Amino acid sequence: MNLSNSQNRSRASNLKYLLAPRSIAIVGASSNAEKLSGRVLAYLQRHNFKGKIWPVNPAQSSIGDLTCYADAAALPAAPDLGVVALSPQASVKAVETLAARGARSCAVLSSGFAEVGKEGAALEQRMAQITEAHDMALLGPNCLGFFNAFDNTFSTFSQYAGGKASAGPVAFVSQSGAFGTAVAGLARQKGIGLGWFVNTGNEAALDVWDVLEAAVDDTRIEVLAAYVESMGNGRKMVRLARRAAKAGKPLVLAKVGNSAQGAKAAAAHTGALATPARIYQGVATQLGVISVADEREMLNVIEALLRAGRIRGHRIGVVTMSGGAGVQMADLAESLGAPLPDLSENTRNKLKPLVPEFASLNNPVDVTAQFIAKPEILENAVATLQSDPELDCIILWLQMMDGFGDRIAEGISKCQGTSSVPLLVTWVAANAGTRKALHNHGLATFDSGADAVRAAVAMARSSNAIALLEDEPFPSLSDDRPKSARVLATGAAAEMLAGCGVPLARSVAVNSAEDAARAVDGDQAYAFKIISPDIAHKSDIGGVRLGVEGKDVAKEVFDDLMASAKAAHPDARLDGVEVQPMAPHGVELVFGYSHHPSLGPVVMLGHGGIFVELVGGAQFGVAPVGARQAEAMLDALPAQDLLDGARGRPPVDRKALAQSFADFSNHVSLHSDALAEVDLNPVIATKDGFIAVDWLVSAAAKETEQ
Amino acid sequence: MNLSNSQNRSRASNLKYLLAPRSIAIVGASSNAEKLSGRVLAYLQRHNFKGKIWPVNPAQSSIGDLTCYADAAALPAAPDLGVVALSPQASVKAVETLAARGARSCAVLSSGFAEVGKEGAALEQRMAQITEAHDMALLGPNCLGFFNAFDNTFSTFSQYAGGKASAGPVAFVSQSGAFGTAVAGLARQKGIGLGWFVNTGNEAALDVWDVLEAAVDDTRIEVLAAYVESMGNGRKMVRLARRAAKAGKPLVLAKVGNSAQGAKAAAAHTGALATPARIYQGVATQLGVISVADEREMLNVIEALLRAGRIRGHRIGVVTMSGGAGVQMADLAESLGAPLPDLSENTRNKLKPLVPEFASLNNPVDVTAQFIAKPEILENAVATLQSDPELDCIILWLQMMDGFGDRIAEGISKCQGTSSVPLLVTWVAANAGTRKALHNHGLATFDSGADAVRAAVAMARSSNAIALLEDEPFPSLSDDRPKSARVLATGAAAEMLAGCGVPLARSVAVNSAEDAARAVDGDQAYAFKIISPDIAHKSDIGGVRLGVEGKDVAKEVFDDLMASAKAAHPDARLDGVEVQPMAPHGVELVFGYSHHPSLGPVVMLGHGGIFVELVGGAQFGVAPVGARQAEAMLDALPAQDLLDGARGRPPVDRKALAQSFADFSNHVSLHSDALAEVDLNPVIATKDGFIAVDWLVSAAAKETEQ
Repeated sequence: MNLSNSQNRSRASNLKYLLAPRSIAIVGASSNAEKLSGRVLAYLQRHNFKGKIWPVNPAQSSIGDLTCYADAAALPAAPDLGVVALSPQASVKAVETLAARGARSCAVLSSGFAEVGKEGAALEQRMAQITEAHDMALLGPNCLGFFNAFDNTFSTFSQYAGGKASAGPVAFVSQSGAFGTAVAGLARQKGIGLGWFVNTGNEAALDVWDVLEAAVDDTRIEVLAAYVESMGNGRKMVRLARRAAKAGKPLVLAKVGNSAQGAKAAAAHTGALATPARIYQGVATQLGVISVADEREMLNVIEALLRAGRIRGHRIGVVTMSGGAGVQMADLAESLGAPLPDLSENTRNKLKPLVPEFASLNNPVDVTAQFIAKPEILENAVATLQSDPELDCIILWLQMMDGFGDRIAEGISKCQGTSSVPLLVTWVAANAGTRKALHNHGLATFDSGADAVRAAVAMARSSNAIALLEDEPFPSLSDDRPKSARVLATGAAAEMLAGCGVPLARSVAVNSAEDAARAVDGDQAYAFKIISPDIAHKSDIGGVRLGVEGKDVAKEVFDDLMASAKAAHPDARLDGVEVQPMAPHGVELVFGYSHHPSLGPVVMLGHGGIFVELVGGAQFGVAPVGARQAEAMLDALPAQDLLDGARGRPPVDRKALAQSFADFSNHVSLHSDALAEVDLNPVIATKDGFIAVDWLVSAAAKETEQ
Repeated sequence: MNLSNSQNRSRASNLKYLLAPRSIAIVGASSNAEKLSGRVLAYLQRHNFKGKIWPVNPAQSSIGDLTCYADAAALPAAPDLGVVALSPQASVKAVETLAARGARSCAVLSSGFAEVGKEGAALEQRMAQITEAHDMALLGPNCLGFFNAFDNTFSTFSQYAGGKASAGPVAFVSQSGAFGTAVAGLARQKGIGLGWFVNTGNEAALDVWDVLEAAVDDTRIEVLAAYVESMGNGRKMVRLARRAAKAGKPLVLAKVGNSAQGAKAAAAHTGALATPARIYQGVATQLGVISVADEREMLNVIEALLRAGRIRGHRIGVVTMSGGAGVQMADLAESLGAPLPDLSENTRNKLKPLVPEFASLNNPVDVTAQFIAKPEILENAVATLQSDPELDCIILWLQMMDGFGDRIAEGISKCQGTSSVPLLVTWVAANAGTRKALHNHGLATFDSGADAVRAAVAMARSSNAIALLEDEPFPSLSDDRPKSARVLATGAAAEMLAGCGVPLARSVAVNSAEDAARAVDGDQAYAFKIISPDIAHKSDIGGVRLGVEGKDVAKEVFDDLMASAKAAHPDARLDGVEVQPMAPHGVELVFGYSHHPSLGPVVMLGHGGIFVELVGGAQFGVAPVGARQAEAMLDALPAQDLLDGARGRPPVDRKALAQSFADFSNHVSLHSDALAEVDLNPVIATKDGFIAVDWLVSAAAKETEQ
């Protein structure tokens, strides 16, 4: 999906009729519950759908107690929803008839559309055009349908609906049907009810973000979750995430399809480093999305959110009956960037009389197995950590204890009842009785310490990021984007960057050895760089010389550079040599910008100069980023030593540098209609701000230039 | 534990009496099964121990049917094993009495020893001395004991022994009691029997490696597994891993306690980069250990080994009913360094008629949900991939399918029966019936695609490494290690390195500007470096100048360097300036060596020059490493671009370079009694071999120098 297409699509206007219909026509209904549309009818009845059900099938006059209609035109009234499960051709026809009959929405379960080739894609487009013209919501095609368990509406043939399906405050949306069903099945095994389950399939019109937007507005829903293979219109994701954050509804996303093969080749570093996975991860982090790697992590986070509550920060306290398990959790927390904090003197003093003499009072607190004789040891330890204002969440680790599950679960449920500090209970190899007791007491329970730590850190990271989201309205950008781009000559690029407020190392272009000599000043050292629109990485071909001093040397270097460039790229246009005073002593960074096809303006902050690719770890965000967000990006760079003054360099002023980057991101996003790509590399950061020493700018070509 | 202590300890000589005793004295036995020693007696009887049980308790004349003895001296014969569960003081006394009575081994379950402080440590040492003097095996203290399910010997108070405990071909050894019990509990939940379970506790004498060595020799055991917090004597780990590889018994290790805080500060890069986690990971990889992150991964690997067999390589084929799940597994496999391979034309052609028209014939093969109607689709797809000689293992992904579990499990079990290519079945949200069916058919089953991929990649990595282990006997080193070290002056270091066969960039030391001028030759460019035993990173303080040409410049640079060094380190001894022809154009690497306190000689291979810390990712191994192992280390470096000729450099000859590093590792390990630390940085690798341009050598000080 791309932006221009999405403009032509039927949007969410009639989504409420789709998700909470008062009447449903099932086109292609069958009394055979083995068939797809037979299952939809069976599931609607099984779950006591309260509205009207109108089966449509020319071959039958009734199905069970229900009158059957020959086609949608014959329906007794305009249905809120038409569910279609026919061949591809017949499905389009059915949608047309439904539209004519005044249906407000439809869900097309049939496959055989864009996923199978051009012919199917054309049918799909036709269907989208019909629904758009009639202002109908369209779910699918090629999907399992959806259910809204709050309103007993199971318009799906997902096998999940064949079992119990209690309503819970979770909206789960999936682009994949089979995977979505698996997640729903796991939720049921955990005793977590899904309020909404929506499989968006091919997303001819409605996409994941549309459905989640509707979930933000539904007061019965507290947690938003989605399984996403294709980001689609990234601007919609950004808007949704910001709305969800504002509404206080956690957004849990599992995004797959992040392998490196999708990365586009590009002239500038920003492009080359900007793999889909890195950009997505950067933007998700910036927006406070709770990113999960897979279905297991997703369900763990949802369980933690529902039963333990949101975790506000990454200071985790651990109580364990095994020192080994504690070490393992400490290792993992540290590797995830959330090392377990030391306990305060006060908390240690409070703990001391409450736990066995040989217990460890460090974090993790190892109470040993002595609590079996004295169950209050466990409760006291947990409650003491919960009362420590310097901890954001508590993880308790237990194992087996067959026969003691009930008693222990009851004890720790008291801790959950008397404190608002979230408590995550890990119980390895718990038997069925223990699991049941934990569930009955409403405790968030995990199968392994790693699960609990991962969930806590993911939630904490989200809370930290949401605290940095700024309140100001997010600029709504047009869906236009550069149709093509051209690399600007150094001078023109400098002009454009100056207009964006980027401070540039002043330089002069010279065309002869004599001019080069004139351009240098006695005492000052200069950098000489070949000027060519055809050579991207100048230093690789000997096109850069640093520390040039004196007029004679300047002449010689000019000739050398021109000769090297000609030797390396005989066909390149050479526009002379740029003479620039040597940059101030500082830390090298790269500031990047590119117009992302789906997310719009995206900025990059990374280690610069030769470190761009070598050190890697550049951070991405949608522009504009705020100063505090920029500081978080800076803090996330891998080689923190470089920023702190490694190898004799002065340390950077992080706040000032973050502000500079935020300003840069603001400038480029304001000029995003004219800019395709900007690469400031290196930027030299000093205590006094930053200066770009070299740059590459691609301007967005105007439509007429194409 | 360190090497010199371990020399004083009772070794494994009487281990067989401990693990398979014909008679067991329980000192501190009790009829109360709530007490520790009461539980040992109860568990031995419950599991039908066939040998003699002799309770020892002065307060009772009998326990149940068994005669009770007043003390160990009164025993009717020398017991093969004495189990001791008394206070710390009384335990030592009991061990003494057992020794006098001729007991061949003892397991001390009591706590209150080294884990609680100095006094306890002294008691523990005393106990170890007694057992050593009497050539008794000693397990513990501070442990849960052990069981040997093959021989019905449950000498433990672990709650695991309270339930069913079938014997399986797995030896599991744990330093942690509670964590070990959790692993045993999980194994039971998976239907995996443990043959041996041994908790080594404080390891006063026997350690994890001793027990696993015994397991290598026991023909009933096929898989070795351990949970390790402290590596202890790393040489023993190395020897064990090599023996296990030779015996064809997979070694699965979960090593915790890897957080960065333990890294020692050191003058040379090798030391600074050599965090415990990195060294352990490097050595484990080199030795073909199957490294697992936690108990979950451990059990998954064990299940795969037992039910699917060893996986010989990392070419994974995936069959899935969900495209989304396939993408997720592909992402994960790629991120673990094992991207899913494309299927051959031949395999695709064979698949085509067997799967639905809309199925994806790429890897992952997405058969869609159509196999519900036609179960043979699934079997055919799996069997076709199994018959592809370019795949090493097959992962099948399914979800839910309540009611179809039996039928599907039966079908895919045929594939397992007719092919030796391992099949890992992932079944998300399987119900109890399905789980049972999978188990009954002996299929290796996982709860998530991520679990299966992780297990497969860990096993493949191990097989790849074992194929590189050389057959030649591993040098058995003395337990001696350098007591202290001193940094050698450049010249002395060069002499020592030359003796180790390291080619060095020839250089001359000069002590005056005039000598510097004499040392340079008209056309050649030189590197000038300050010589000082007190300055480790010379370039950071302006102590290095590159590209010096001409006699006048040489004079000037000499004076500059001396002045810079004096300014930066007024107290440093300055021994003049080293004048060295500029190194050949090549790839910068670092070769490192250090004498590890536990593993002995450890070598490091990494990106060199300024990239050492910035790029990171240096690889470690125990010396000597073979040429093919060295090539694997080279292939594992993070910035492969640098090796392939990034930024205008010539690519390295990997085979030649690997051979050079192997030679280096061989040389330094032969001189490991004289060398404490070597840091060749940078090493310039060219097509013609390598040359060390700068180096830092710490010699091992002789005993008498201390």
